[in-house]
Amino acid sequence: MDIATVIGVVVGFLVIVGAIVIGGGWQSFVHIPSLCIVVGGMLCATLTHFSLSQFLGIFAVVKKTLVTKIPSSSELIQNMVNFAAINRRDGALALEQEIPKISDVFFVKGMQMLVDGQESESMRNLMSLEIDNVRERHSTGKKILEFMGASAPAFGMIGTLIGLVQMLKNLSSPDQIGAGMAVALLTTFYGAFSANVFFLPLAGKLGIYSKAETTAMEMITEGVCAMADGDNPTTIREKMQAFISHGRREEVKANI
Amino acid sequence: MDIATVIGVVVGFLVIVGAIVIGGGWQSFVHIPSLCIVVGGMLCATLTHFSLSQFLGIFAVVKKTLVTKIPSSSELIQNMVNFAAINRRDGALALEQEIPKISDVFFVKGMQMLVDGQESESMRNLMSLEIDNVRERHSTGKKILEFMGASAPAFGMIGTLIGLVQMLKNLSSPDQIGAGMAVALLTTFYGAFSANVFFLPLAGKLGIYSKAETTAMEMITEGVCAMADGDNPTTIREKMQAFISHGRREEVKANI
Amino acid sequence: MDIATVIGVVVGFLVIVGAIVIGGGWQSFVHIPSLCIVVGGMLCATLTHFSLSQFLGIFAVVKKTLVTKIPSSSELIQNMVNFAAINRRDGALALEQEIPKISDVFFVKGMQMLVDGQESESMRNLMSLEIDNVRERHSTGKKILEFMGASAPAFGMIGTLIGLVQMLKNLSSPDQIGAGMAVALLTTFYGAFSANVFFLPLAGKLGIYSKAETTAMEMITEGVCAMADGDNPTTIREKMQAFISHGRREEVKANI
Amino acid sequence: MDIATVIGVVVGFLVIVGAIVIGGGWQSFVHIPSLCIVVGGMLCATLTHFSLSQFLGIFAVVKKTLVTKIPSSSELIQNMVNFAAINRRDGALALEQEIPKISDVFFVKGMQMLVDGQESESMRNLMSLEIDNVRERHSTGKKILEFMGASAPAFGMIGTLIGLVQMLKNLSSPDQIGAGMAVALLTTFYGAFSANVFFLPLAGKLGIYSKAETTAMEMITEGVCAMADGDNPTTIREKMQAFISHGRREEVKANI
Amino acid sequence: MDIATVIGVVVGFLVIVGAIVIGGGWQSFVHIPSLCIVVGGMLCATLTHFSLSQFLGIFAVVKKTLVTKIPSSSELIQNMVNFAAINRRDGALALEQEIPKISDVFFVKGMQMLVDGQESESMRNLMSLEIDNVRERHSTGKKILEFMGASAPAFGMIGTLIGLVQMLKNLSSPDQIGAGMAVALLTTFYGAFSANVFFLPLAGKLGIYSKAETTAMEMITEGVCAMADGDNPTTIREKMQAFISHGRREEVKANI
Repeated sequence: MDIATVIGVVVGFLVIVGAIVIGGGWQSFVHIPSLCIVVGGMLCATLTHFSLSQFLGIFAVVKKTLVTKIPSSSELIQNMVNFAAINRRDGALALEQEIPKISDVFFVKGMQMLVDGQESESMRNLMSLEIDNVRERHSTGKKILEFMGASAPAFGMIGTLIGLVQMLKNLSSPDQIGAGMAVALLTTFYGAFSANVFFLPLAGKLGIYSKAETTAMEMITEGVCAMADGDNPTTIREKMQAFISHGRREEVKANI
Repeated sequence: MDIATVIGVVVGFLVIVGAIVIGGGWQSFVHIPSLCIVVGGMLCATLTHFSLSQFLGIFAVVKKTLVTKIPSSSELIQNMVNFAAINRRDGALALEQEIPKISDVFFVKGMQMLVDGQESESMRNLMSLEIDNVRERHSTGKKILEFMGASAPAFGMIGTLIGLVQMLKNLSSPDQIGAGMAVALLTTFYGAFSANVFFLPLAGKLGIYSKAETTAMEMITEGVCAMADGDNPTTIREKMQAFISHGRREEVKANI
Repeated sequence: MDIATVIGVVVGFLVIVGAIVIGGGWQSFVHIPSLCIVVGGMLCATLTHFSLSQFLGIFAVVKKTLVTKIPSSSELIQNMVNFAAINRRDGALALEQEIPKISDVFFVKGMQMLVDGQESESMRNLMSLEIDNVRERHSTGKKILEFMGASAPAFGMIGTLIGLVQMLKNLSSPDQIGAGMAVALLTTFYGAFSANVFFLPLAGKLGIYSKAETTAMEMITEGVCAMADGDNPTTIREKMQAFISHGRREEVKANI
Repeated sequence: MDIATVIGVVVGFLVIVGAIVIGGGWQSFVHIPSLCIVVGGMLCATLTHFSLSQFLGIFAVVKKTLVTKIPSSSELIQNMVNFAAINRRDGALALEQEIPKISDVFFVKGMQMLVDGQESESMRNLMSLEIDNVRERHSTGKKILEFMGASAPAFGMIGTLIGLVQMLKNLSSPDQIGAGMAVALLTTFYGAFSANVFFLPLAGKLGIYSKAETTAMEMITEGVCAMADGDNPTTIREKMQAFISHGRREEVKANI
Repeated sequence: MDIATVIGVVVGFLVIVGAIVIGGGWQSFVHIPSLCIVVGGMLCATLTHFSLSQFLGIFAVVKKTLVTKIPSSSELIQNMVNFAAINRRDGALALEQEIPKISDVFFVKGMQMLVDGQESESMRNLMSLEIDNVRERHSTGKKILEFMGASAPAFGMIGTLIGLVQMLKNLSSPDQIGAGMAVALLTTFYGAFSANVFFLPLAGKLGIYSKAETTAMEMITEGVCAMADGDNPTTIREKMQAFISHGRREEVKANI
């Protein structure tokens, strides 16, 4: 599991709740009807915006993306250089017995096409099409969380307006103005809290994961197509290393 | 009909109205002049922004888009693989008798061009042009709803400013300050409510539908052009499957 | 004249003014110095932003764009199919006597190049260059109105700040606080009113017109270049019809 | 000098200052510490954002851009058609004696390459590279002014927060609440005033100038490359005229 | 070290703190719980948004980018013209002994490929890939700082809402309203202060540095590829000079 997300969400929650408890009177911050307006309104708006399957799939998307392991760049480069050396020495067919050792399903597919002797151009087309569509599907999860992060504060404001109107109608009891206004502000607080502690940062994390995964897929595409073009292992290693920073470039040698 | 939209809009409406009724004094939330400012102002601004036919067509666009059935991806892939197998075995002319079984008008058009023996390049050009123009037309409906969603809160603020100025002129009767301010805030409430419960989520839904429909059209284009290029059914199936996620990829076999 | 714009602007104006008059005390909403801050500030900022000729030309641009008639799509398709049939039957030279019947200056230019026997490629280049530059010039008018729509509320806020500072300095006469604050809010009202009833919707309308005009120009380009390429009338009709929705596609036959 | 900018800035300044003076008590609007927060904070943030040379160069950029004369389109077209006629009649070498008559340094460079007999393709590459880099350099000045226009109101809000906190700590002397709050609002006023009267409109003007200059450079590129391709003067005139509106297209004849 | 950043951050900090100290009662502006909400909340949201390694690397990125020296354009052009002259006179192999004199690692790599006799096309591909990936990595640091700059004011508002609710619950002790509200506003002040003095300007600076570094890399790519294409030193000098403004173009001669 992604440790940064867990720490960020849990500690972020504790910081805000801690500040409330220390300030005293945490009971003032629990108001079920206000919570219903913000959470209910946001969920309904999200359901109207997206399709039912997208809405129900958001938990799976978040969970899957946080758990899925991105293949590390250096391991990927090492594998690719090894395969390039085998390809150079023994030909593409010799790569067939290496395929079962690969865990990434996209890498397997690319190697299979290489072994089948497909041309670099058509391989690149098919792999690019798949990368585009993976990016597309990932972005839906991000958009749902971003919409939730924009919708929650909006319903917070709607709740505050409702509370203010109700309070202003009862100005005859001035000792309740403060309490009424405090309740009215709670929905805005709920909206801002949920958006900034959960929805918006999680949407960002989905984007980071999507970026990492599609970059790995692009590295695989570059490497496999370069092998199909018959590039030598040195050129392939340099193409792979262009994707990572100078500091992280270790000496990679074919390890076969 | 799209069940998510119905649930989202109806339940969203009920959540907010319920919160008002439970809070007591729902009569304070009904104020016809305030409603006229927000709804009237928004409709007039929309009419100024768009052409008369676009404005009148918005209900039809919303209704049609919510009712139209998007062909399911798996069914589309199955059909395409079947056609590819027939095309491979019996030639493109044998596909002519399959055309009446297709319900989608864009798919029919593509198959007809395939049967007519047009070249892949010119077919792709014509089909891409049509996809671009479909996307273009869809986006107009989305823009109208988004403009309404931005305009309603703006006229809500204008109404609130009018109410505040009127109230501030009558500060001599202090017992009416609360009521005056409550009425002033109502227009902002109407604007925020209609934008966040109806207009903005519905605009988003139009975008989701447009995306689904144009993706189906792109899949059809890829498949039909691949057939025209003489690709074998396996390659065509793989091209089709790049559009859907790994989890949803079932084993598809030509079923002829 | 464009009826939607007239209705939108006039009724929008009446709705807001009507709400003010019904609410009583419309005199409170007329304050010349406040009007000067908003209108004067906005005009000066616009003059600083744009060149003098662009600033003076904005009225002409708005008027011309609202009055200019966009050639209807169906009429355009009918003409193009007729010309394509003539071109097919009698050759491009026979089209020369059709040119005087065309009213659109861009269409005439395209047909003239066709008759002159220019190549499809160079015709498309020149016509695309012209479309790009038309879009460019149109967008300037839209940008001016959008800037006015952003600048008016900003000067409204500046006026409100001035009014608030002046009022706060005179807190010693508490019976004037309300009146002072009402005047201070008027500039914000003027800014929001002018932006949302006039500037922003009119900027949007300019965009709609620009879109319609450039789409017509793109249809002409596609049609004329297809004739130069020797496409048959059926293909040309299909290319033309890709620009309009299925519902509006009538049976078009060469009518010569 | 650009008269629109001078009028816009000076009159805009006078409108706001006039409204303050007429309202009485202009002394309330002068508060040096508030001015220091807004101006000092904005300058420091700009210095942090940009490099020292960019920061110091902003005055030169603004001055140079406002003073530099953009070659008029019609004059440019006339020159280009004349050169095209000479090129057609006497060959590219005959253009050499025309070069000293050109004042624009980019035009001179293009003509020199034409006389040197370079190919259209390599000329277009080099000239496009230069246009891209001119656009790039211009956009830095625009970004600095836009950042100032965003930073000034932000520091205005920071100053207002400081003033409010200080005022709220001294609620025991209620007759100073008004004065304290007035001073607090002054920083917001300074920020909004400087951004909307100076920074944002000037940033826009830089964009307008940059656009005009790069369009002129694009016209020169199109014309010189067309001459290198051996296009006839009529075609060149039409290419040039595509850049300007129909209304401004005069009859241009080679004037040699 | 970059002097503009140091001056901007330090003086900006002093201006705001100075204004507070001069205004009196600076103790009111120090409130540890408020600081914890803003800083803690912002750090947690950033940790949730980005990966752990990106989060921990932000200090290194900021430090490295501020310290790294961008090769000056004029020096780069001088070197490139010298190398072009050697290449022209003695052939690419003679350049090998010049490589050790180059400090920039990207320049070394390009020269090495030139000496190895690689083709211009493949060199350009590999170098462009590296530039794209450098730009990509730089943008992550910028995004983190921008997210911090957006998150800090958001948690400032959350803290203010908490403070307001707590204050409103205790309206019975009216002499503490002012102090309570002052504390509530402090979190908004902390958020706005840190975002506008530190995070947003530093994010901008990262962008400026990234731009300068990638422009230098693009100049190197253009120059090395032009040498590989066998362009003469004059053409190469002109290509290089297109990247800098006319004012900064000095007479560059091969200095060998």
